[in-house]
Amino acid sequence: MTLEEQQDRVRASFDKQGLMATLGASLETVLPGKVEIALTPRPAVSQQHGFVHAGAVSAIADSAAGYAALSLMPAGTGVLTTEFKINLLSPATGDRIIARGQVVKAGRTLTLAQAEVFAQTGREERLVAFLTATLMSIEGREGISD
Amino acid sequence: MTLEEQQDRVRASFDKQGLMATLGASLETVLPGKVEIALTPRPAVSQQHGFVHAGAVSAIADSAAGYAALSLMPAGTGVLTTEFKINLLSPATGDRIIARGQVVKAGRTLTLAQAEVFAQTGREERLVAFLTATLMSIEGREGISD
Amino acid sequence: MTLEEQQDRVRASFDKQGLMATLGASLETVLPGKVEIALTPRPAVSQQHGFVHAGAVSAIADSAAGYAALSLMPAGTGVLTTEFKINLLSPATGDRIIARGQVVKAGRTLTLAQAEVFAQTGREERLVAFLTATLMSIEGREGISD
Amino acid sequence: MTLEEQQDRVRASFDKQGLMATLGASLETVLPGKVEIALTPRPAVSQQHGFVHAGAVSAIADSAAGYAALSLMPAGTGVLTTEFKINLLSPATGDRIIARGQVVKAGRTLTLAQAEVFAQTGREERLVAFLTATLMSIEGREGISD
Repeated sequence: MTLEEQQDRVRASFDKQGLMATLGASLETVLPGKVEIALTPRPAVSQQHGFVHAGAVSAIADSAAGYAALSLMPAGTGVLTTEFKINLLSPATGDRIIARGQVVKAGRTLTLAQAEVFAQTGREERLVAFLTATLMSIEGREGISD
Repeated sequence: MTLEEQQDRVRASFDKQGLMATLGASLETVLPGKVEIALTPRPAVSQQHGFVHAGAVSAIADSAAGYAALSLMPAGTGVLTTEFKINLLSPATGDRIIARGQVVKAGRTLTLAQAEVFAQTGREERLVAFLTATLMSIEGREGISD
Repeated sequence: MTLEEQQDRVRASFDKQGLMATLGASLETVLPGKVEIALTPRPAVSQQHGFVHAGAVSAIADSAAGYAALSLMPAGTGVLTTEFKINLLSPATGDRIIARGQVVKAGRTLTLAQAEVFAQTGREERLVAFLTATLMSIEGREGISD
Repeated sequence: MTLEEQQDRVRASFDKQGLMATLGASLETVLPGKVEIALTPRPAVSQQHGFVHAGAVSAIADSAAGYAALSLMPAGTGVLTTEFKINLLSPATGDRIIARGQVVKAGRTLTLAQAEVFAQTGREERLVAFLTATLMSIEGREGISD
């Protein structure tokens, strides 16, 4: 696949993730093995103290890691997260939250990817979360592609 | 605190989590050290294959584990998730997704809680995810209570 | 396989784990989906403060979880850990450390297992660690069986 | 502390870890926020297929991450691992296994560190495991320093 085809593939899949639209998340950069997803803090994605909820942070971090993995897989292959761990280092607040996913090691069946999540306030950027995820590639299973 | 006060406290905090309303999640059982949160699968919380997104599953599992921990903490103490791992065992689909959180070990500073997530279809119930989370109790920090 | 065959299989595999002998760990109970491994605290398995090292705690917890998974797999199938998380809840000290592994969900390719690790002092038992592990079943790969 | 004092501190603590001697692990590089520990594969640290046991890989990775964290902490402060996750990407075999720990984010109470574990065969190096760990700094608790 060309870079443009890879980007189209990830974008088409992202657009099918209803949760991303519900959270107001946007797909930013798509490069081979690297994907960025952004989210604007607001009450609709908050936990009880007003910070962005760990579940919303996890959602964009998991998608960024998963799409980083998908971007390296052959056409027709789908991807499912089998597990992830996220360390929440500091409250997620600021102008914008951005999750930067990248592949750590691509395997035939299992791929390890990570995502660093930053909170941006003005020009400043703080690391607020760190995720590692195992992605399983799926071929020929009904309903699972890209 | 009486059981009723504990339940009121968790319910009041849950109602402040904007994300739970956005996802359409509902607080079910609240008992000392045990909390259940439910979610109905629908396009607004889906990933690209139509299953409930791992981020939405994680959000209710994390909240269920966190509130299980909070239910055992002294009044005035708040709780923050410092990390969680979730294993996604099977696609989250069905009539209803329910996360059952419970405390594994309560500590002075750190509490370990777990959440089992089940997919219910008719009368059948399947385990679809398993989360373990570390919760930190917070006292006297501005903006953090319950 | 009969229960006796299952037990012989796990015991034979355990005896091939050089690390278990090096640590002085012993295989206790073996039941379908449940395996216990014990370790006696002593300087040879310690960290810098004299507690049992997290690596030694992890080693017996991982083996207990892995053998719990193996005990349910068809003959000729081997098992490899693909990831685990361990929460260390309290210093591992006492007369004996015991890891109790059990299967959470057995799958065709991936199995989720957990292990609770207890420190025993006299008749008292404290939970000191909690592990969840993903095990992958391996068939027909050279050098990997049981 | 000077670099030399930092290195002496880490080395003195490492020498008290009985498990490292039992495994035959050696402390290699010590720099601020970065520590390397090496291990030679041999039957005494193996699992049932002859690979280095996940527990031994975890032990050196956890120690490398923990000492990376300790190297940045004020004198008199001790460090305990509260949790770690390790992804085992490929069998640990070869001439030498090396764990490279580094701090991801240092906090007042909790520090996140990671360790990449490589298998070296001749001049080739493969990533075989990836660990993230939460370390807690401990002050004024009897028996816990460095």
